[in-house]
Amino acid sequence: MELRLSVCVLLVLCVTGNVNGGRILVWHTEASHWINMKPMLETLVDRGHQVTVLVPSSSMFMNSSEPSRFQYEPFNVSLPVEFIEQLVEEFLHFSLYEMDYLNIFQIHSRLIKLLKKTTNFSLTILDGVVKSETIMKKLKEGNYDLILADPIYPGSELIADILGIPLVFSLRFSIVNNWERLCGQIPAPPSFVPASVSKLTDKMDFSERVFNFIFYALQDTVLDYSMWKYVDKYYSEVRGTPTSACKMMGNADIWLMRTYWDFDFPRPFLPNFKLIGGIHCRPAKSLPKDMEEFVQTSGDDGIVIFSLGSMLKNMSTERANIIASALAQIPQKVLWTYSGKKPETLGSNTKLYKWIPQNDLLGHPKARAFITHGGANGVFEAIYHGVPMVGIPTFADQPDNMARIKAKGAAAIVSLNFMTAEDLRNAINTVINDKSYKENVMRLSRIHHDRPMSPLDEAVFWIEFTMRNKGAKHLRVQAHELTWYQYHSLDVLTFILTIVLLLTFIFIKTCSFCFQRCCGRKKTKTKAE
Amino acid sequence: MELRLSVCVLLVLCVTGNVNGGRILVWHTEASHWINMKPMLETLVDRGHQVTVLVPSSSMFMNSSEPSRFQYEPFNVSLPVEFIEQLVEEFLHFSLYEMDYLNIFQIHSRLIKLLKKTTNFSLTILDGVVKSETIMKKLKEGNYDLILADPIYPGSELIADILGIPLVFSLRFSIVNNWERLCGQIPAPPSFVPASVSKLTDKMDFSERVFNFIFYALQDTVLDYSMWKYVDKYYSEVRGTPTSACKMMGNADIWLMRTYWDFDFPRPFLPNFKLIGGIHCRPAKSLPKDMEEFVQTSGDDGIVIFSLGSMLKNMSTERANIIASALAQIPQKVLWTYSGKKPETLGSNTKLYKWIPQNDLLGHPKARAFITHGGANGVFEAIYHGVPMVGIPTFADQPDNMARIKAKGAAAIVSLNFMTAEDLRNAINTVINDKSYKENVMRLSRIHHDRPMSPLDEAVFWIEFTMRNKGAKHLRVQAHELTWYQYHSLDVLTFILTIVLLLTFIFIKTCSFCFQRCCGRKKTKTKAE
Repeated sequence: MELRLSVCVLLVLCVTGNVNGGRILVWHTEASHWINMKPMLETLVDRGHQVTVLVPSSSMFMNSSEPSRFQYEPFNVSLPVEFIEQLVEEFLHFSLYEMDYLNIFQIHSRLIKLLKKTTNFSLTILDGVVKSETIMKKLKEGNYDLILADPIYPGSELIADILGIPLVFSLRFSIVNNWERLCGQIPAPPSFVPASVSKLTDKMDFSERVFNFIFYALQDTVLDYSMWKYVDKYYSEVRGTPTSACKMMGNADIWLMRTYWDFDFPRPFLPNFKLIGGIHCRPAKSLPKDMEEFVQTSGDDGIVIFSLGSMLKNMSTERANIIASALAQIPQKVLWTYSGKKPETLGSNTKLYKWIPQNDLLGHPKARAFITHGGANGVFEAIYHGVPMVGIPTFADQPDNMARIKAKGAAAIVSLNFMTAEDLRNAINTVINDKSYKENVMRLSRIHHDRPMSPLDEAVFWIEFTMRNKGAKHLRVQAHELTWYQYHSLDVLTFILTIVLLLTFIFIKTCSFCFQRCCGRKKTKTKAE
Repeated sequence: MELRLSVCVLLVLCVTGNVNGGRILVWHTEASHWINMKPMLETLVDRGHQVTVLVPSSSMFMNSSEPSRFQYEPFNVSLPVEFIEQLVEEFLHFSLYEMDYLNIFQIHSRLIKLLKKTTNFSLTILDGVVKSETIMKKLKEGNYDLILADPIYPGSELIADILGIPLVFSLRFSIVNNWERLCGQIPAPPSFVPASVSKLTDKMDFSERVFNFIFYALQDTVLDYSMWKYVDKYYSEVRGTPTSACKMMGNADIWLMRTYWDFDFPRPFLPNFKLIGGIHCRPAKSLPKDMEEFVQTSGDDGIVIFSLGSMLKNMSTERANIIASALAQIPQKVLWTYSGKKPETLGSNTKLYKWIPQNDLLGHPKARAFITHGGANGVFEAIYHGVPMVGIPTFADQPDNMARIKAKGAAAIVSLNFMTAEDLRNAINTVINDKSYKENVMRLSRIHHDRPMSPLDEAVFWIEFTMRNKGAKHLRVQAHELTWYQYHSLDVLTFILTIVLLLTFIFIKTCSFCFQRCCGRKKTKTKAE
């Protein structure tokens, strides 16, 4: 059987239909979320749409003054950018240097405080839109056809509601799938759908299923207490009527989920959830000349690409030295993104960079392994190019992402805080020399590429569909209109159980009555005799 | 915003990849199931695959001696074709002339008998494959890459298991989604997923939810008793080990569901369930000359197309006369497929045909309404061409299909047994003159056409994917490995509840002990004083 997989990206655009002149308002976002959204926006501009991006003055990654093909709508936030930088730093410090040494109560106490702080910060950013008459006037006059939002920052559903226009979400995940489950109504039986950030896989033994069940319940409560409470209050004040932000999120027409079955475990989903994992992946371009020369010096051993992502550029001298000495012991050449002080143990095979063209290096024929923090963008790129991974996950979805790839046999995991140089060296050697890792990542890569349409085309199709049809409500399940006990048929079960109990009671009483009558008569008769 | 939806079917084939020379074994099927499968097989032949179709000697619709581009593998069945014709007749008679006059217990008693008879007949057909050494030898030597089956007849999963090759199902539905739910593990909360053949919609009030819940449970029991019991026994005998046919169905790699969200209510589904509803639909071709002339005489009033499907070609004289007199009262010209005696009340505007080119008539600009039994094939064609419907559903999924289209505002329903001529006339006039019906069916038609890829391309892609990758197990949820109580976390809930009760008990006992000690001491002290 001969395989001929010719991916004709340009041609498929003709299949997916075209909508000219749509006006798309893009909700502000941050960090890798913004990196991930850009290719989609570029394609929307290519297809003749006007893309307007809301940019807060406090953004770390978005810059409304940089030359761009998008229109920017900057808005003022009363908190400076340093505030978010400090918040990120605090969150990173907690995830990296505190969490491993705290018990579950201490972790949750800190987590609630951090989440409260983040929520209140997010709502302060939202003030910059909702409480600015100028911005709201501009948005109303913009005659937008659609809001496209990564819901990591709240507010897009509120604005979509105020403007009365369709809403398309694009997201990787929420904590314990809270938004997808409770707002989007996606079914997630805890028996085989691991809660996100739980580090579990879909194959759980009894104790893991107990943990998963409790984890869902616990994190839902944490989010209720540290997020929903505040957002609901904010939305209710703005709308002048009691409002559930979660219910409002449930009005989204389409949820573009940045996942796919190469990366994720199969699970139930809904007609308005579309999978666009790996949307940013693209073939490798050639490397800068000096980098290519360095790569070529690796010979048959090849190269190892090492990046801990856009957030974590630095670490303690001790950890950096352990890593450097591990890297010095492998035969590959290593390209490492690191902004800290040069480690003393750095080997001659390792070069430090402030930035590397990660995708182009992963797509280089000499790429042998990818040491990664496990951010979804990097993991998808490694799958796309078929490079086995060594995960050093730190926070958010990173431990989860790496747990997935490890379960699929394409990665090893080490701990940033606890690994020795030997652990790291062994992990790298294992994923390079044990052929199963390469075979498994190549299998994932085939799944990634062998799909009916590319994630970018899928995303663009559904955004344009929503604009063409002024929504996509025919894909929205009726579950949105049910309460939680109605959804689970608990009222029905109670009713049926009551009827059954009542009938049983009547039956027993009738039997007992008949028995008494019958025996009573017999007794009287005997007595009389 | 300008809409440019150019569907380039040929181009998308290049996107969906290509597999040359796959060897596909097609499981035997019947009636509209076979009609529906043909276009998919034709396309697979076009794409260079060898398609071999198993044809039983007792088939009503499949003919292994007719010239075809498929290879046929005929096999002998010990029962004559008359047996199945009589069984269908019995089933039709029950659905048409008995069911309306029976109570729920009588209906289920008859249903169980009919289902048992059908199951035993199906297993007799299966004997023709499994118990024929010649056929089994041929199948083993055929080196097939895949079995494609409509599971309406059992056995394909058993043969796939024996041959050790992937299995792709193509089906419209099973009773109360029994196969999809219990074997395919698709979630179907009874609170908003109406059981198939229940005639319910996704918007249910409390009493409907109670009915739906009980209906699921009742029909599952009926199927256990009248189908699974026999099939399990058969499979266990063949394999020489206790075998669950349902679990074996769960091994299917892909389930191609002949539905889509134009027609169906949105509901949860799984990654290995792909929607190919309307796969047989195609643009209209020109009509035979005399038919076109008749159609043209209709002027602005247009035509009404009337067919009760491939199974029901006849009815009582009384019913035929009522229908004919209703048709005589409408201004449209009517084309009616009817093999019975010409009704006395037939108007000059109505022509009877033994067969009509239904799709070409529905796609004719003069088509105003479609009177249909509500078979899924016809309903999809009407949606494809945007023609409002009058449903006269009789059996199987027909009442359900029409309930869906009625709920979406594109059809009226009348009862074959109880309608008067006035009812039918009013229904036809309503769907033609009340513009909302046309608007609604056009909305459904837009949804039908406006999808990322055509159902045919979707089906072909996943069949070829399964061949290319020797299965699609990465899309199969872990739920298959769980028991029902594990799936619903009942063991976890029991465990947690036990712990909570135990802790509460210990807490109460401790408090009570302390209280007693404390009060006891006080009492003794007071006494001493």
